[in-house]
Amino acid sequence: MRGLDTLPVFPMSAFVNDGGRLSIGGNDVAELARVHGTPLYVYDEETLRTTARAFRSAFQSRYRRTTVVYACKAFANVGLVRLLAEEGLGFDVVSGGEIAVIEAADVGRNDVYFHGNNKSAEELEYATRSGVGRIVVDNLHELDLLEGVLHRLDARQDVLIRITPGVDPHTHAHTTTGLLDSKFGLPVTTGQAEEVVARALRSTRINLIGLHFHLGSPIFEREPYRDAIGIALDFAADMKAKYGFIMREFSPGGGFAARYLITDDAPAPDAYAEVICRTLEDGCLRRGLELPAMTIEPGRAIVARAGVAVYTVGAIKEVPGVRTYVAVDGGMGDNIRPALYGSRYEAALVTRMAESSVGPVTVAGKYCESGDILVRDYDLPQVRSGDLIALPAAGAYCLAMSSHYNANPNPEVVLVGDGSARLLRRRETYRDLLAADVV
Amino acid sequence: MRGLDTLPVFPMSAFVNDGGRLSIGGNDVAELARVHGTPLYVYDEETLRTTARAFRSAFQSRYRRTTVVYACKAFANVGLVRLLAEEGLGFDVVSGGEIAVIEAADVGRNDVYFHGNNKSAEELEYATRSGVGRIVVDNLHELDLLEGVLHRLDARQDVLIRITPGVDPHTHAHTTTGLLDSKFGLPVTTGQAEEVVARALRSTRINLIGLHFHLGSPIFEREPYRDAIGIALDFAADMKAKYGFIMREFSPGGGFAARYLITDDAPAPDAYAEVICRTLEDGCLRRGLELPAMTIEPGRAIVARAGVAVYTVGAIKEVPGVRTYVAVDGGMGDNIRPALYGSRYEAALVTRMAESSVGPVTVAGKYCESGDILVRDYDLPQVRSGDLIALPAAGAYCLAMSSHYNANPNPEVVLVGDGSARLLRRRETYRDLLAADVV
Repeated sequence: MRGLDTLPVFPMSAFVNDGGRLSIGGNDVAELARVHGTPLYVYDEETLRTTARAFRSAFQSRYRRTTVVYACKAFANVGLVRLLAEEGLGFDVVSGGEIAVIEAADVGRNDVYFHGNNKSAEELEYATRSGVGRIVVDNLHELDLLEGVLHRLDARQDVLIRITPGVDPHTHAHTTTGLLDSKFGLPVTTGQAEEVVARALRSTRINLIGLHFHLGSPIFEREPYRDAIGIALDFAADMKAKYGFIMREFSPGGGFAARYLITDDAPAPDAYAEVICRTLEDGCLRRGLELPAMTIEPGRAIVARAGVAVYTVGAIKEVPGVRTYVAVDGGMGDNIRPALYGSRYEAALVTRMAESSVGPVTVAGKYCESGDILVRDYDLPQVRSGDLIALPAAGAYCLAMSSHYNANPNPEVVLVGDGSARLLRRRETYRDLLAADVV
Repeated sequence: MRGLDTLPVFPMSAFVNDGGRLSIGGNDVAELARVHGTPLYVYDEETLRTTARAFRSAFQSRYRRTTVVYACKAFANVGLVRLLAEEGLGFDVVSGGEIAVIEAADVGRNDVYFHGNNKSAEELEYATRSGVGRIVVDNLHELDLLEGVLHRLDARQDVLIRITPGVDPHTHAHTTTGLLDSKFGLPVTTGQAEEVVARALRSTRINLIGLHFHLGSPIFEREPYRDAIGIALDFAADMKAKYGFIMREFSPGGGFAARYLITDDAPAPDAYAEVICRTLEDGCLRRGLELPAMTIEPGRAIVARAGVAVYTVGAIKEVPGVRTYVAVDGGMGDNIRPALYGSRYEAALVTRMAESSVGPVTVAGKYCESGDILVRDYDLPQVRSGDLIALPAAGAYCLAMSSHYNANPNPEVVLVGDGSARLLRRRETYRDLLAADVV
């Protein structure tokens, strides 16, 4: 095993030069680390644009009226939002804070979808004032809140309703969202989804235009989408028959998988598109439903591969006969996924990508907690203090969940492409950590 | 079960008034929530001061030369540090950021102990310049780094060495730190601890004054302390015989447990003090060692009970025959412990503490993830949207690990006592979330 062998999970522009050094977006990664410091998150423009286009093309070639919206919760950043807007993507937001990111990026609001199981009245008002295109109502309480907000603002709002299809996507229990036993959405089987549809249709403020579900993330199988779309279309047909509801928009959510390990087999956008578009089209025709516009919501699948975490090795501790710990200058504060979900990553030495491994090491973080392990028992070449270690496929749900645990500032983030690097987020300072403290 | 029955895990000043409303530090909690908004973290001055004094008294009455240092990683905040300094506590810090908190609080540096498995040269320099009293060297690499820093600064530094006694404290694997297979410290059995002691003693820059170990957290048993102290003293005696090392300071770390649930049985400071002080004193006498000064490092045990999280209920979703989800306006962004460690909390309705429960509900957060559950299947009175829910024993490792996941700002924090409330940390704004983004 060599670092070279892990290249397929690095960004598309990554290559290893003759000196065995990792390059991304035409930038020597070690040089990026020297200039920007570590921990550093490097995002690759080529991967972002190519993946965004791949999703658009996979779905729009099969189902023309598809809008691809990026799920900001995977990593919300002003520069990233602008770049993805240039690629024609809309945005899935889940909080007032994410709407603030959209506003700061100053991109169109029409293709912005506001999700979440517990939106506050303040957030709903903010969304409406901001011109957010669609609010995806999760529950009856929210419908009431939204009606109150719209009444106060004398406004109307396009709305989708989130239904719970009760389909198991076979992913981590923490991230399974479409089951009956879920805090999200309105179950179809219990009549709760119907109740909200009926009430929304009676509202003069709410313009109910569609249905949404989300199964969880990441989903490696395609059958759950097929099953859930069938259930959603049955429900749409039922609502049409009972209330004359016309489903003009339909969203089967996101949850599209990313490849973290060389041995992972994440379906390509085409594979998801094939089952989703065909099931939707056939299903509507069979039930006599007009074909709706469709929205899909990739987050992880857009950004995971695009991002690489770069750390500097500090202390190395060999416990004879047990294992060798290689401590880096980041950890669970910038990537809690290994501790939280048991997530696994590949790892590589940035300046010695062609060297063969000499045995397993455990890459530990600098946080005061034994659970702060990034990669366990992983074969690497001889590691020395001062080496740079790259974790590929770190673009999703790492920085998004970053904390100030142990009062460590958050890393710097750069976007690379064509030999240049642009700052997306500056390194935080100790002053940032204290910004809200009363001194 | 009524909210009243959970009072023993609320702060010491908590009581329920005739109207069934929760009061802390002489403040009506619902009124605090009205003024400061929710999520709100309320810290009780009485609990903080009383617990700090209880630790000092328990140890100093048995072993006069004990210094109690607060482990800032449990919750680092400028106002909290000042308050605990007033009670005569020192501080255990684990990063440059935590040293920055100490500096911002402008408290003495002599009783500040700098821990961590992977301190950077910059952090070691910052600590030395800041006048941090003790640096606790974790490994050989750090010893070299520190020597280099001290040489550059032409300085000397008091140092303790962290040894790994190889004792299992029987706590969560994520937070067990004293085992041989650990990223922390220098194993005694492998000779690595001896190597660093010998080298430190030869250094002209490093003033090796003592030994430290830390077993993990929380530790409910007392035997692990006894066993580990025995191992540490054997090692100290060995180093004295071989190198003439005089252990002038000794630190058995922290890890003292807190009571989260009514059914928890966390030992009192006296119980820990009894075993630790006696084992140390007897052990030193038996081995012919001079009695060292001792440092103990409670974090969780000082702040856990002092802090209460207060949330407002939004959407309530009853899944018939399955469970009822009560969604609040915080969640895994301000308290990731249930998702990360499976931690459990009591819960109570702030304005209806005397009402009997009507059945179990699951308190979910507002984060877009099914794992965002704060309390599962917990008996509460009938919950209504707009109710305030308090989670007691939320003072440790909640805000410390808080994130901006889903772009949610961090909560406001107040310190209450004698009928008044003082801001420790203001609520973050959307602007704070974007502070480091390049716009």
